[in-house]
Amino acid sequence: QSLKVGLIPGDGIGKEVVPATREVLKALGKDIPKPEFIELAAGFETFQRVGVALPAETVQALREECDCAIFGAVSSPTKKVVGYSSPIVQLRKELDLYANIRPVVSVATNDSAARKVDLIVVRENTECLYVKDENLMIGERGREARATRLITEYASKRIGKMAFELALGRPRRQLTIIHKSNVLSVTDGLFRETIRSIPQLPESAGRYDGVRIEEQIVDSAVYKLFREPEIYDVLVAPNLYGDILSDAAAALVGSLGLVPSVNAGDSFVMGEPVHGSAPDIEGKGIANPLATIRSTALMLRHLGYERPAVRIDNAVTQAIRSGFVTPDCGGKYSTQDVLGKVVDFIESS
Amino acid sequence: QSLKVGLIPGDGIGKEVVPATREVLKALGKDIPKPEFIELAAGFETFQRVGVALPAETVQALREECDCAIFGAVSSPTKKVVGYSSPIVQLRKELDLYANIRPVVSVATNDSAARKVDLIVVRENTECLYVKDENLMIGERGREARATRLITEYASKRIGKMAFELALGRPRRQLTIIHKSNVLSVTDGLFRETIRSIPQLPESAGRYDGVRIEEQIVDSAVYKLFREPEIYDVLVAPNLYGDILSDAAAALVGSLGLVPSVNAGDSFVMGEPVHGSAPDIEGKGIANPLATIRSTALMLRHLGYERPAVRIDNAVTQAIRSGFVTPDCGGKYSTQDVLGKVVDFIESS
Ligand SMILES: CC(C)[C@H](C(=O)O)[C@@H](O)C(=O)O
Ligand SMILES: CC(C)[C@H](C(=O)O)[C@@H](O)C(=O)O
Repeated sequence: QSLKVGLIPGDGIGKEVVPATREVLKALGKDIPKPEFIELAAGFETFQRVGVALPAETVQALREECDCAIFGAVSSPTKKVVGYSSPIVQLRKELDLYANIRPVVSVATNDSAARKVDLIVVRENTECLYVKDENLMIGERGREARATRLITEYASKRIGKMAFELALGRPRRQLTIIHKSNVLSVTDGLFRETIRSIPQLPESAGRYDGVRIEEQIVDSAVYKLFREPEIYDVLVAPNLYGDILSDAAAALVGSLGLVPSVNAGDSFVMGEPVHGSAPDIEGKGIANPLATIRSTALMLRHLGYERPAVRIDNAVTQAIRSGFVTPDCGGKYSTQDVLGKVVDFIESS
Repeated sequence: QSLKVGLIPGDGIGKEVVPATREVLKALGKDIPKPEFIELAAGFETFQRVGVALPAETVQALREECDCAIFGAVSSPTKKVVGYSSPIVQLRKELDLYANIRPVVSVATNDSAARKVDLIVVRENTECLYVKDENLMIGERGREARATRLITEYASKRIGKMAFELALGRPRRQLTIIHKSNVLSVTDGLFRETIRSIPQLPESAGRYDGVRIEEQIVDSAVYKLFREPEIYDVLVAPNLYGDILSDAAAALVGSLGLVPSVNAGDSFVMGEPVHGSAPDIEGKGIANPLATIRSTALMLRHLGYERPAVRIDNAVTQAIRSGFVTPDCGGKYSTQDVLGKVVDFIESS
């Protein structure tokens, strides 16, 4: 028996960090089934080469051959390119990876001024403005563009349940619903109301009684995130708010280069570092591999491999504590140096 | 000749801070036409009393009798209330106050760790998801809600011009366009493209040649705002991104209680503190009046009264530097204490 892992490096530093998943999974030894890797294409370079950003073979291989996957990053062209559309958004939809789970945790250091952050952003991953239903028309005063923002009870309920489950497993058991229902009373009203009512559903049967439900309007949620990050435990948000909030939370812990995520559905899970393709540091060998390494741990945890996930997380913490970090975190080490250290720490654990 | 100022205290601490506008304008003496004040109703309490959140008389008085106005804050009911909708969103639309201008500036203190922030968020104020065109239907899998996000060339052009004009008047002359066109290629594509093309319009005639145009995807803009706030000068954003970004920026300078704004159109201007109604501190006499006082200065500046605006701003800076601040800024003073100090500083300037 083996663990079949799809690797989709994508563009930019995606190609520099995704190899870390190979090394880290190999270092785990007998703690997981023997990993097998399947390299798959997607991204802007793929688009330039074959005319589509997400080849059908990639989707098919993920569906039929892989147990899980790691996605690196894709470049967004700076000019509008006809026919190009982000493969990550499409992948989330095609594989029905409806939850984007983004834990943001500050590593305890000797710096007493550092804020303690320990939260998870649970981002709905399939709808909101990401349905990409847009049109353009000519009105009396020029061009008018419209986009549809879709919020369904179905998607809100399943993301809400995922968030309740995650909250249940944490000491504070607090769930904050993020919305803007003071303006979007129908769409965000539905999101908020659907999630609030989950504990009362017959199928919940008292399961979530211990979870405290709070809520925050998105603008003030971002404000509070900076002022009092310690008030948050699990946050559940529609797609776009979740996108913004997870970047905001990443800023609190020092670097986007540290923040992992998984895109999870009921039958597949794909790890993805939250940072993008970072064209400014591409090719310099200094991309931070820790977000990818942590995404690999999250992916394993989601598959039920808790012990190896903990070994990876501990190794990452050790590397950070002992100063083996890339320049984005104030260190002087290369991608390879940091990866090497983490692998050492895993092997000796 | 007099300056007719509409005062709309609204709910919560709005009622505690708006009186500051009276005192401050009176303290300016002969620097402005004699102020006359017209108290006007709006908000959730008004809704509970008369059944509408924004009475027609309020709009009419603003249109026909006032030269300008100050809006306090309104409460958002925590449960959905049939028929209630935010009067501030409606006012912006009815008076065509298409630009929401929110300068966020850190006051230089002796604290060398404080980040230097000096930026203006120029937020489009009439469209995006704020058109509130929402509907609910029952689909196969339950309720489905949709909202329309509208971006027009017309509105993007006028907010863009306002932003270019503001950038022109600042030493760095830098304008950052905020968008998410990697997902919303049509709507945000139109916003970005329309603003980028303003310098080439015949009517611009080289006027904006000195302005450097940059752009940022909204999620990474929020991330960068926390990591490197000093990179920003003027930011121009569609309505919702501007809402979130201005709260995020406020977090950097210590308190929402410090951040002013004006809602500006071609023929009217309304000052508005960025903080909300703050039910948690309502009635305690400790609401920070500085955001309202600064909004009053911004309003005067927009009307062409530069010297009195500078006197107010300097008085606010003096109050902060000498520690006369409310608890949200770490001080022990009341709303009245702080207001009294600012008035003293204005009178002696
Ligand atoms: C690249 C972009 C489409 C994507 C998103 O908005 O989801 C990214 O910002 C992310 O957070 O994964
Ligand atoms: C109260 C709310 C409708 C409003 C907005 O979203 O515009 C507020 O957040 C603001 O920023 O003025």
